[in-house]
Amino acid sequence: MLIARVVGSAVSTVKAGKLTGLKLLIVQEVTTSNELRSDRVPIVAVDTVGAGEGELVFVITGSSARYTDLTEGVPVDASIVAIVDSLEVGGKETFRKA
Amino acid sequence: MLIARVVGSAVSTVKAGKLTGLKLLIVQEVTTSNELRSDRVPIVAVDTVGAGEGELVFVITGSSARYTDLTEGVPVDASIVAIVDSLEVGGKETFRKA
Amino acid sequence: MLIARVVGSAVSTVKAGKLTGLKLLIVQEVTTSNELRSDRVPIVAVDTVGAGEGELVFVITGSSARYTDLTEGVPVDASIVAIVDSLEVGGKETFRKA
Amino acid sequence: MLIARVVGSAVSTVKAGKLTGLKLLIVQEVTTSNELRSDRVPIVAVDTVGAGEGELVFVITGSSARYTDLTEGVPVDASIVAIVDSLEVGGKETFRKA
Amino acid sequence: MLIARVVGSAVSTVKAGKLTGLKLLIVQEVTTSNELRSDRVPIVAVDTVGAGEGELVFVITGSSARYTDLTEGVPVDASIVAIVDSLEVGGKETFRKA
Repeated sequence: MLIARVVGSAVSTVKAGKLTGLKLLIVQEVTTSNELRSDRVPIVAVDTVGAGEGELVFVITGSSARYTDLTEGVPVDASIVAIVDSLEVGGKETFRKA
Repeated sequence: MLIARVVGSAVSTVKAGKLTGLKLLIVQEVTTSNELRSDRVPIVAVDTVGAGEGELVFVITGSSARYTDLTEGVPVDASIVAIVDSLEVGGKETFRKA
Repeated sequence: MLIARVVGSAVSTVKAGKLTGLKLLIVQEVTTSNELRSDRVPIVAVDTVGAGEGELVFVITGSSARYTDLTEGVPVDASIVAIVDSLEVGGKETFRKA
Repeated sequence: MLIARVVGSAVSTVKAGKLTGLKLLIVQEVTTSNELRSDRVPIVAVDTVGAGEGELVFVITGSSARYTDLTEGVPVDASIVAIVDSLEVGGKETFRKA
Repeated sequence: MLIARVVGSAVSTVKAGKLTGLKLLIVQEVTTSNELRSDRVPIVAVDTVGAGEGELVFVITGSSARYTDLTEGVPVDASIVAIVDSLEVGGKETFRKA
């Protein structure tokens, strides 16, 4: 799972029928200290947990993106599956949700 | 999903039978402000939504590319599944379809 | 799908049984103008369309490589599924098969 | 499988239901001599073997991450499937678990 | 399929049950002339063909790694499926097994 921040959102009217009703968010990978990784490309992920802009989330990519309750059989390759409360690296807390 | 622009198209006569009748477009990743990413390689994706050259689209890759109505069981690893109306990053609209 | 050129071939006697009889070609990614991308690593793909050395082809990777008539259930992760006739980018033909 | 070191852990309350009860660890790729690869991004993986911080592990990514006893049908794309006892490269032992 | 050389091996006692009895080898990508690619990270792959250290092999990654007789349903994402006899690029033999 990628550690990413929700940085925006996307709107699309003409799309695969199975995507109807799904919220599409723009996410970008961050370090474990929540700094944006400028060397990473933002991608679009389906939100399955009610994430909001600015929140740190876990994003799964590939076929597993279809294994949430909202995305079964849906043509998506990236899904937000968790909102991060806290991260700890090397015994130190590097991120805690405000 | 990748954020990409349709930059061209491809023609192939000799191909896997299941590809017959599918439109093959060349897409290249763009920034959320619709600038081509020169560090990204153009790829060929099956168009499932009637996208036209110059349009911003979402491209799914991997096994999920087979999960549209047009591509079930078809040997494709990239499908265009949406035409982008608008993108918003950090509270600002960075792209709107003309 | 990757845009690639067939640059060579491979021979293997000791291999997974299901690979028996499949032609293994070495392909390398090219630009839409058919220039080899030196920053890309050649990979080995199963030929499912009778491609020959020097030809431009489309290569699918991942699970979809198993979805051709020749590769169903076979342990392969890259298959050549089309021979390219022509490519067009930005309204200009950038490649046409000789 | 990636060779990685467990460098931390993650806590999430709001998440896909099927992730409930799974331990989420932060792992980073290392060389075969157990040096962190600074050019690699830490990812979050489900622990299926009781790995602890500092241990060297093997991480599988993609659909196979769902093929452990703990993760069947779960939306995860990275699972820790083994704790490394030792690695040998070129006839020399490059790592042995303390 | 990646062109790789077997450079070492790995031992693990604590692992997913389905991995029991499988040989885990360390492989690193090589050029078609069998030079190690220093820009590529060694990965761990399951040996399904009796490969030995120093041999050139083909490695499949992703879900297809589970499609050999030895790895069906096993949580692995990289399998060695062939030992390379010879490679030919541009009409010249670039590698032949000793």
